[in-house]
Amino acid sequence: MLQVSIKRGREKRVKGFHPWIYKKDILSYSRRPKPGEICIVRDYKGAFLAKGYINPDSYIAIRVLTYRKDEEIDFEFFVRRVKEAFAYRKKLLSGIMETTAFRLIHSEADYLPGLIVDNYDGYLVAQFTTLGMEILKPLVIKALVEVVKPKGIYEKSTVQTRELEGLLLCEQTLYGTVPEKVTVLENGIKFNVQIIGGQKTGYFLDQRENKLLFAREFVDEGDRVLDAFCHLGGFGIHAAVIGKADSVVAVDSSELALELARENAEINDVAEKFTFVKGDCFKILKKMQKNGEMFDSIVIDPPAFAKSRTVVEQAKRGYKELFLRGLKMLKPGGKIVVCSCSHHITPPILEEILLSAALDTRTPLRILYTTYQAKDHPFVLQIPESRYLKCIFARRFEWEVK
Amino acid sequence: MLQVSIKRGREKRVKGFHPWIYKKDILSYSRRPKPGEICIVRDYKGAFLAKGYINPDSYIAIRVLTYRKDEEIDFEFFVRRVKEAFAYRKKLLSGIMETTAFRLIHSEADYLPGLIVDNYDGYLVAQFTTLGMEILKPLVIKALVEVVKPKGIYEKSTVQTRELEGLLLCEQTLYGTVPEKVTVLENGIKFNVQIIGGQKTGYFLDQRENKLLFAREFVDEGDRVLDAFCHLGGFGIHAAVIGKADSVVAVDSSELALELARENAEINDVAEKFTFVKGDCFKILKKMQKNGEMFDSIVIDPPAFAKSRTVVEQAKRGYKELFLRGLKMLKPGGKIVVCSCSHHITPPILEEILLSAALDTRTPLRILYTTYQAKDHPFVLQIPESRYLKCIFARRFEWEVK
Repeated sequence: MLQVSIKRGREKRVKGFHPWIYKKDILSYSRRPKPGEICIVRDYKGAFLAKGYINPDSYIAIRVLTYRKDEEIDFEFFVRRVKEAFAYRKKLLSGIMETTAFRLIHSEADYLPGLIVDNYDGYLVAQFTTLGMEILKPLVIKALVEVVKPKGIYEKSTVQTRELEGLLLCEQTLYGTVPEKVTVLENGIKFNVQIIGGQKTGYFLDQRENKLLFAREFVDEGDRVLDAFCHLGGFGIHAAVIGKADSVVAVDSSELALELARENAEINDVAEKFTFVKGDCFKILKKMQKNGEMFDSIVIDPPAFAKSRTVVEQAKRGYKELFLRGLKMLKPGGKIVVCSCSHHITPPILEEILLSAALDTRTPLRILYTTYQAKDHPFVLQIPESRYLKCIFARRFEWEVK
Repeated sequence: MLQVSIKRGREKRVKGFHPWIYKKDILSYSRRPKPGEICIVRDYKGAFLAKGYINPDSYIAIRVLTYRKDEEIDFEFFVRRVKEAFAYRKKLLSGIMETTAFRLIHSEADYLPGLIVDNYDGYLVAQFTTLGMEILKPLVIKALVEVVKPKGIYEKSTVQTRELEGLLLCEQTLYGTVPEKVTVLENGIKFNVQIIGGQKTGYFLDQRENKLLFAREFVDEGDRVLDAFCHLGGFGIHAAVIGKADSVVAVDSSELALELARENAEINDVAEKFTFVKGDCFKILKKMQKNGEMFDSIVIDPPAFAKSRTVVEQAKRGYKELFLRGLKMLKPGGKIVVCSCSHHITPPILEEILLSAALDTRTPLRILYTTYQAKDHPFVLQIPESRYLKCIFARRFEWEVK
């Protein structure tokens, strides 16, 4: 097997369970590496550190699969990993209201880098994002079938990062048959998810617990709710069904998303509560605010503005503009939830942006919760990149200063 | 009324709803201030900023009560503030399991600086921590009686900071009659709280939601649980009753606290599950770890180690030692909750300490939640000091590296 030594001092990160080894940290190879092959990683003195797969041309050259010397990367390995991941989800989601959609494998955070698998009521949607995992695909599929016994597996390897790994984008049925659309339950609410043709693997599962918390504690009966960047209507429909909101204004720029959101409002019998607005949220919120619209409860869940560290300052301005609009449209005593799914916008940065908007609008706010992505998208303390979603749940005081 | 001008540039903080004005920020007085009197705060040009009370000898000279020009600090003012605080608690706590004990007034975070009021099943326990609030005591009591209609009010102004304000410590019944002990319900569990003679106002109410989350999601049926710094047994008894733990080892250095904890275990019929250990947690945990004890679930909730910014480094070492012990006694797949109630230990610092302990013990951890103090102890975004309690909920992976 290929042996890779890494530079002195670089073993610390590996020992600390971070699964990425950068190209620049590599000291030497025992022979010329074949792209995607399994290798043994050693420190500069030759001591065993980990096993992983290598893509020598990638910025992240090696991704670790195991830290155990005695563990082979074979079918049994994938069976063990998938079993642990499945058991973890079953245990954690058992306490949540009826839910039939969850992320089964969350890449690095399940120590299966390059692999994402979502379960939609027994249909699996898989993404293979690296060359190493692409090569291991047959073992992965076999293990998924063995452990999960799915009705079907659909591959949706449509992320642009595949191109960095020298791979083409790819969509196909890998096992059984998979319908275009599946109806799942999330917190007891029905959602039609477009598996074939939709965004990501079909639905954003990472806000599940935040939607429930929002509907339960941040929406009161009779509220007027704003759902900015509504996608398939997750927050808004939760607000209407569980929170008993009176009306929901849901804004998104995607016609396809709004169509599905409309459909989802209908199958939950809350369509008459909804006003859907198609357009750029920056422009729509500005217009609504200028028109003097006011809400009891607001959620702002934008896409990732800061995809890399270099654009953090620009992203901060974007978030702040949205939060300013939201705070200006928030009634006294009102509730607001602001989210960021960029890893580079850390919880303290998101807090700082909200504070800055709260100071500019003179809105004193009580913070109730700061939450992360849903429990089936784990955040591993040793892998800071695995925390990406943050939501701040805040309430405005009843009193005002004129 | 006394008029106080503050230095140029210092108005920003006041406008930003931070209720503290430092002695060093004061520009001039309209006349010699009487300690504790109400005053109007103006910027250096004379524009109105706020009303508050003054203690010219205190480091924090003025604490703001209102930002409204038209608002008088009279009986009606306190009625309005107490009403908002009471309504806020009733709304927020309605979703929680049966609970009859809560913090009604949380000082600055309710814009009533210097006043803390806890409600134990209709008996109020009040702390007046500043000279200004001490002088306003008759109005406060009258407003509490009017709005809350309590069975009794007991004053427990026993915090050392009173001495900085030139006040003596003081304990007395202010209204009605108050028993020495009251039995309250917290998340449906009975707790005997020692009002007269106990620590703080009798009980730590600020971990209510964290105890429930711990018991529901971080304790499995049959678990062996460690409750370090158990005080009245809050976490441990929740684990035994709601989490159906098999056994709980509860450690505390206070004999009085352990006696009450024992009593609380008994009245909830879980006494036979408990082993109480009296002693310094640092020493006890060290001994237990050396003896090879292992737990399925661990909570470490120490008192504030970092009471000021200067001792943060020392405090970090203290937390880390405890977390190291905890991680070494945590079974694979085990659950651990670590807490800090020092404002100076921010969420990122607590995370950094836990990460450092996790790296030293080679324990990969998934973080499920970072939570703050209970909702009835609000954290106001504009008053960073009002966030003091943080808890990190983490799980160890099932796999191990030998």
